[in-house]
Amino acid sequence: MDASKKVAIARWNGAFESLQDIVAVEEPLEIRLGYVSVRGRKQQSVSITMRTPGDDFSLAAGFLFSEGILRHPEDIKEIVWCGDGANQNVVRVELADHVKPDLKRLQRHVYTTSSCGVCGKTSLEALELQGWAVVTSEARVSAAVLVELPDVLRASQAVFEKTGGLHAVGEFSAAGGLLNHREDVGRHNALDKLLGHHVQNGRDSFQGDILVLSGRASFELIQKAIAARCPIVAAVGAPSSLAVELAKEYGITLAGFVRGGTMNIYAHPHRIVPGT
Amino acid sequence: MDASKKVAIARWNGAFESLQDIVAVEEPLEIRLGYVSVRGRKQQSVSITMRTPGDDFSLAAGFLFSEGILRHPEDIKEIVWCGDGANQNVVRVELADHVKPDLKRLQRHVYTTSSCGVCGKTSLEALELQGWAVVTSEARVSAAVLVELPDVLRASQAVFEKTGGLHAVGEFSAAGGLLNHREDVGRHNALDKLLGHHVQNGRDSFQGDILVLSGRASFELIQKAIAARCPIVAAVGAPSSLAVELAKEYGITLAGFVRGGTMNIYAHPHRIVPGT
Repeated sequence: MDASKKVAIARWNGAFESLQDIVAVEEPLEIRLGYVSVRGRKQQSVSITMRTPGDDFSLAAGFLFSEGILRHPEDIKEIVWCGDGANQNVVRVELADHVKPDLKRLQRHVYTTSSCGVCGKTSLEALELQGWAVVTSEARVSAAVLVELPDVLRASQAVFEKTGGLHAVGEFSAAGGLLNHREDVGRHNALDKLLGHHVQNGRDSFQGDILVLSGRASFELIQKAIAARCPIVAAVGAPSSLAVELAKEYGITLAGFVRGGTMNIYAHPHRIVPGT
Repeated sequence: MDASKKVAIARWNGAFESLQDIVAVEEPLEIRLGYVSVRGRKQQSVSITMRTPGDDFSLAAGFLFSEGILRHPEDIKEIVWCGDGANQNVVRVELADHVKPDLKRLQRHVYTTSSCGVCGKTSLEALELQGWAVVTSEARVSAAVLVELPDVLRASQAVFEKTGGLHAVGEFSAAGGLLNHREDVGRHNALDKLLGHHVQNGRDSFQGDILVLSGRASFELIQKAIAARCPIVAAVGAPSSLAVELAKEYGITLAGFVRGGTMNIYAHPHRIVPGT
């Protein structure tokens, strides 16, 4: 698998043109742990992480090293792909017989489940998106308006200005008015805070809205936009490959690199119209 | 709790001076779910997220909304602090009686455990760092050398140059030589890949090394540096409050905003020396 892939985009620079862009690949990797218990060899899923494919055996070994499960090379019996290796999205680290992992400690930090998760599935299948509906919305936004929104959001970032350390998410009307915004060290938290505020106050859909992200657009942010039925997402940074695929499949208009009066549109550009 | 806090730093700009800086607050929040089962009301921990305090009830509601556990305001019976609320780091969302959450679906995406995790503990206690040792190392690096390392790392980022979408982690010698580097959409993955490579090849300590991060320094990156016994971490972006606290407590030299020939040193500045 490659670390980057080509995608067709619509580039806005005062007018639209069709171009190719290259995005960083993001794919789920499940890490499973094999170990000796009193009842023989067992295995358990210990993490699903969204990663760029490549060096996956090192990623699994480094993750377990960081979590204190293994310390030395001799703690590893072998590292293998789960299944036939056709879908390289489940890796299993077999610990040497002498290693007694403290699974309880691992549970404190990371996702665990005893079922085999993503083995043998494609990445979108593996993420269990069934039950989600395609976002349909007649919302439209002017390209000239959209490219200005990150500057509006930035001007509202009180804590970022002081610390340089926070992500922001802004909710805008299709006319470009800032409706709400939240900041957090975690971009997914900033978006959850925004969505939760509305749920608490009786809204459960963002059909006419634009979400503006201060950073990059990854899988989980698009996942949340789909949950909220929000049709347009604009990010100051780059989108990942999975963000682009998810946006295409679920009807989300996705713009990236929205800055300096220009942007790249990665999915469903029809909602972004020329003129003011 | 505040979203930002003051910290004392050593600022390097050709010489050292003592200043105050402001960092974004990062603290763990455990989200627990209360619901009606056939055996009465139950509760379960469904997520621990590192967040900036504030709007925590909205964060919990938005998280469960994004995960499809609740859809409407009437799905929420109440949202409360766990315990006496003195440590506001465990929030519980009690679902209304009519809501039957699909906990299996939630398990696919997020951390779950049936034990009560961080309730009533301070945040560092809650993160179960016991067993970790303070990093002691006689390593020293010249300030003039250190401030140049992010440019060296950037020049090595092959995929980032194409996509703008990847984080990088570089491992440097104290003399400033680039030893290794990895890129990934997730910064924690890039560091795990780097550490895992060494573990696979027989190294289990990075005593003399410098880790350079292309972005911000958060809790989990410092956690991994401690696991690897790596004494010096330099980030192009801002550190979080928890990254600073953890670095101070565990003997890690932490520099942030390392760019343009200047940097801020947030913890253990003695390893960074003037001169070349």
